[in-house]
Amino acid sequence: MISKMIFIIFFLTLLSHSIINASVVDFCVADLSSAETPSGFPCKSSVTINDFIFSNFNSGNTSNSPFKAVFTSAFVHQFPAVNGLEISAARLDMDVGGGVPIHSHRGASEIVMIVQGRITVGFISSDNSVFVKTLSKGQIMIIPQGLLHFQFNAGRNKATAFLSFSSSNPGAQLVDLALFGNNLSSAIVERTTLLDPAQVKKLKAIFGGSG
Amino acid sequence: MISKMIFIIFFLTLLSHSIINASVVDFCVADLSSAETPSGFPCKSSVTINDFIFSNFNSGNTSNSPFKAVFTSAFVHQFPAVNGLEISAARLDMDVGGGVPIHSHRGASEIVMIVQGRITVGFISSDNSVFVKTLSKGQIMIIPQGLLHFQFNAGRNKATAFLSFSSSNPGAQLVDLALFGNNLSSAIVERTTLLDPAQVKKLKAIFGGSG
Amino acid sequence: MISKMIFIIFFLTLLSHSIINASVVDFCVADLSSAETPSGFPCKSSVTINDFIFSNFNSGNTSNSPFKAVFTSAFVHQFPAVNGLEISAARLDMDVGGGVPIHSHRGASEIVMIVQGRITVGFISSDNSVFVKTLSKGQIMIIPQGLLHFQFNAGRNKATAFLSFSSSNPGAQLVDLALFGNNLSSAIVERTTLLDPAQVKKLKAIFGGSG
Amino acid sequence: MISKMIFIIFFLTLLSHSIINASVVDFCVADLSSAETPSGFPCKSSVTINDFIFSNFNSGNTSNSPFKAVFTSAFVHQFPAVNGLEISAARLDMDVGGGVPIHSHRGASEIVMIVQGRITVGFISSDNSVFVKTLSKGQIMIIPQGLLHFQFNAGRNKATAFLSFSSSNPGAQLVDLALFGNNLSSAIVERTTLLDPAQVKKLKAIFGGSG
Amino acid sequence: MISKMIFIIFFLTLLSHSIINASVVDFCVADLSSAETPSGFPCKSSVTINDFIFSNFNSGNTSNSPFKAVFTSAFVHQFPAVNGLEISAARLDMDVGGGVPIHSHRGASEIVMIVQGRITVGFISSDNSVFVKTLSKGQIMIIPQGLLHFQFNAGRNKATAFLSFSSSNPGAQLVDLALFGNNLSSAIVERTTLLDPAQVKKLKAIFGGSG
Amino acid sequence: MISKMIFIIFFLTLLSHSIINASVVDFCVADLSSAETPSGFPCKSSVTINDFIFSNFNSGNTSNSPFKAVFTSAFVHQFPAVNGLEISAARLDMDVGGGVPIHSHRGASEIVMIVQGRITVGFISSDNSVFVKTLSKGQIMIIPQGLLHFQFNAGRNKATAFLSFSSSNPGAQLVDLALFGNNLSSAIVERTTLLDPAQVKKLKAIFGGSG
Repeated sequence: MISKMIFIIFFLTLLSHSIINASVVDFCVADLSSAETPSGFPCKSSVTINDFIFSNFNSGNTSNSPFKAVFTSAFVHQFPAVNGLEISAARLDMDVGGGVPIHSHRGASEIVMIVQGRITVGFISSDNSVFVKTLSKGQIMIIPQGLLHFQFNAGRNKATAFLSFSSSNPGAQLVDLALFGNNLSSAIVERTTLLDPAQVKKLKAIFGGSG
Repeated sequence: MISKMIFIIFFLTLLSHSIINASVVDFCVADLSSAETPSGFPCKSSVTINDFIFSNFNSGNTSNSPFKAVFTSAFVHQFPAVNGLEISAARLDMDVGGGVPIHSHRGASEIVMIVQGRITVGFISSDNSVFVKTLSKGQIMIIPQGLLHFQFNAGRNKATAFLSFSSSNPGAQLVDLALFGNNLSSAIVERTTLLDPAQVKKLKAIFGGSG
Repeated sequence: MISKMIFIIFFLTLLSHSIINASVVDFCVADLSSAETPSGFPCKSSVTINDFIFSNFNSGNTSNSPFKAVFTSAFVHQFPAVNGLEISAARLDMDVGGGVPIHSHRGASEIVMIVQGRITVGFISSDNSVFVKTLSKGQIMIIPQGLLHFQFNAGRNKATAFLSFSSSNPGAQLVDLALFGNNLSSAIVERTTLLDPAQVKKLKAIFGGSG
Repeated sequence: MISKMIFIIFFLTLLSHSIINASVVDFCVADLSSAETPSGFPCKSSVTINDFIFSNFNSGNTSNSPFKAVFTSAFVHQFPAVNGLEISAARLDMDVGGGVPIHSHRGASEIVMIVQGRITVGFISSDNSVFVKTLSKGQIMIIPQGLLHFQFNAGRNKATAFLSFSSSNPGAQLVDLALFGNNLSSAIVERTTLLDPAQVKKLKAIFGGSG
Repeated sequence: MISKMIFIIFFLTLLSHSIINASVVDFCVADLSSAETPSGFPCKSSVTINDFIFSNFNSGNTSNSPFKAVFTSAFVHQFPAVNGLEISAARLDMDVGGGVPIHSHRGASEIVMIVQGRITVGFISSDNSVFVKTLSKGQIMIIPQGLLHFQFNAGRNKATAFLSFSSSNPGAQLVDLALFGNNLSSAIVERTTLLDPAQVKKLKAIFGGSG
Repeated sequence: MISKMIFIIFFLTLLSHSIINASVVDFCVADLSSAETPSGFPCKSSVTINDFIFSNFNSGNTSNSPFKAVFTSAFVHQFPAVNGLEISAARLDMDVGGGVPIHSHRGASEIVMIVQGRITVGFISSDNSVFVKTLSKGQIMIIPQGLLHFQFNAGRNKATAFLSFSSSNPGAQLVDLALFGNNLSSAIVERTTLLDPAQVKKLKAIFGGSG
């Protein structure tokens, strides 16, 4: 038993020399109540196993969604343990006929993993090339960072994909919302898109924009 | 039709000024036949939609595996499109009683997303704390980079998880293989682990090590 | 003179110990003929002062442009010396009434520096807020990475801005070109934007798209 | 009108899932009153368009400057919106005969864009090679990070350059000030530069150093 | 004397334009009392030369250590000046027969510099190859990030190595402590290592583990 | 014996799925004969233990050095295994009265570890503050990236320090060599330093400069 004590002493010494706050060393679960920094949120001072688990990775109710799609994200605001680890996840559930309009993530590449159903995924590259394919179970697809892309259910049943992102905070910008869902003046929208005034007016109405 | 032509000319001009090789700009699908660099492989000179899709994201045959588990990775060597994008994926299928022995990924944090079944996931932090939990569908867990961790099937049915990593090349080091699956001398293994010689000998035999 | 010789010997020794290929150490002028890597192009083996200078930072002929705007970029393909240095530049000249349609740069934040005239600059953030302002000489504006933004001449004279980017290869994606200037099927455009078929058809004609 | 309401609900739902504090997501305007971190300052909690604009990008009064030069920086302390975005800007105005003494930026490469006049720009690489050239309007030059460099007016009129940097906080170290503008002992200066004591004394007087 | 004053004024002006808090610009000595962020600790507001010096780089008392080894780290918690600079150091003293058990650093590569004696250093790569060598004075060795490795005294006298790491906070995970020095259940240890229950029990006793 | 075979098969399968070229995964020993990239050299295709060891970490002959100092670097060109690992090392030997003139490393912070003797180490920060101290055995000091600094022997015996750097390629620029050891014209040196022509002429002679 003496050797045991000595070992423990040795190792505690070793640890006290090299690591004071090892939990903070290995990870940095976000303290969402503190001000963010360019590298993410300050770390919570104490954590438990539950901090590392996100338990809301379920399908939402697509029947309430006009696009028949629900996007459930586990980004840093919902899943603070990914803070600083340059990764996050989401799940996408789409009813028959559902889909996600064209959008981009300014801060992350995305991997789409098909869980069930058939999903058409597409992105457009900077040289204006189109990359589009309908995927089934057993397939995954990568969408490079910052490019416009879309997903829609291409099958006759519900479709689900698990998504992962190369950032704890990928961001998401939907073109329709950016153009028609705020107070950006119609004149500017028309000038910077060449859309007809009537079309802009119609979409502003749909997406709740003014101006 | 004149205005159409002019617009096209304008945009081609704009593009030719700002972007010569846009595909290369947005992504860098690995040319695995070229020598790797610290940032990854050189880029393939031309790509198609199929480069962005990995179609082998299926369950392997767990009945052939002594650990009743199959790990199917879509890292840069299997899925060259993730090159340079700091993300990759894998799927893990475990039969009843199956699991992955303790291991670490030197280059990536990992998100475990449960697709079916019940899976016990655990990691140990640098201050020697244990974080372990049995997860079910609807749950995901994050394992911070470089820490020892394990997964095993905790249920009475097959279990499947989709995994994502914060690197295109996470690496994987299994403790048993590192200690017992090569020519590292038994004397060194004993000295640096405090394992008994008989135990080392037994595990060297199991994992095919010499020395 | 002896001391001179000794000093030289000393310093050459010092240099030969610490630096063999110092030019390569300090910078990495792109060899555009080699395959790119995720961190940029391989370095040219020898350089001169002219490699570090880009002499085409002039106004193009805006009268030939349907948008009455010319964008002259000094990105890595035009100015190989910025390779690996995470910076590049461009100039934007706009005639009266001219402008750049809504677009994003997937890989860089952008600083707009007004050289002459009055320019309206705007961007939309991920929470759909609009940030727009008309700038004059003596003002600069920052546009965060990856967000949709636009610039147009708000004055009665020519306007010029110098732009800088936080990447040697910012990329550029114009929404109109991504949607209407390629073979992305009209059905998908309509589905993922909610634009009317007639509007899509008209813009496909303007931007030269098929499908 | 019903469809409009539904769309809004859908999108608000989508947003509330994926983004709670989108402004913070996309950018991080520095709160200069908080303690800095290695990645920059904590983010301000609310911003307006004016945060993204720096309106003091004007020429200073060069007649008051002994070097007949004024350097106006828009680094993070003057322009908090660049915080975390790895970019900043400055303008340099030099009267006839004016210039900036030899200096380096420890944290950024620099692009010099000539706005008016003729400016001689030079840098020295680690292998002791000299790269120097006199630039005119229509030319830009890149100075790699951390190398000693200088700029001076080479013409018969005022000269102005716009500068951009690959960091929000480039730093600046002028050799003369580092050696002669503080309390570094003359003995150490002589020993580490081989300058004559009389020369050191003279320059200490000019630059206000003691010791 | 007038010119001196003018120069000073000029330079103070230059500085006040470009740098307000230069000390913070160049380095970020950790304020260990503040909450850490993913990029490290917030910066102390004022520093002296003593902040940049660590004076405890001495040998500990190896006679008290069961492994006859003492590891003295100058990581960010002991040496706050390395915060944000991606480097740290340690020294390792080993008595005859002493050594450091197998372990890994999740966040840093390590250079081992022999100061005195003969030290056997080894690491195992992800493909299970063994890299092991006995080093003497005049030799250094690099251990890539995150791989299992060990060091032990191979000579007949005390041995000392200076170590440097590519992170201010490398972390350290000893396999024995991770498996046997906490409350990780013996059943899980056995299942994820294939060790015999008796061996696990013995080592749990040595390292103070329960479960 | 059957279980042994099965385990081996399992693990080889596991490895072949996740890792094809594991050595390349974990490290990237430089192939110095290939063109460098911004992230470093391409990787050698096969390595041995000797690639990870640098055996020339000895004192040079200081008696041949006019500054009575020898700097032995283990940067990427001398020690290719540090390629891509963001760390390197050097040793500095100084005879009585010896020292290293004022210089900076554009790409790395530096830790100075005293092995024997007494060494004065100093650096100047961007706000022109002086940080200087004489160190003895048992002390280490950190010099932040890119700042001017110097070291000299402050004792009555030989002095030795081990140095580590936060880059595989720190670069080194000595002010005297940059100003006086090349063909930079004396007129420019005088203009950008305020040194007297006679002083410039004298130092150009010492350091072998022309112009």
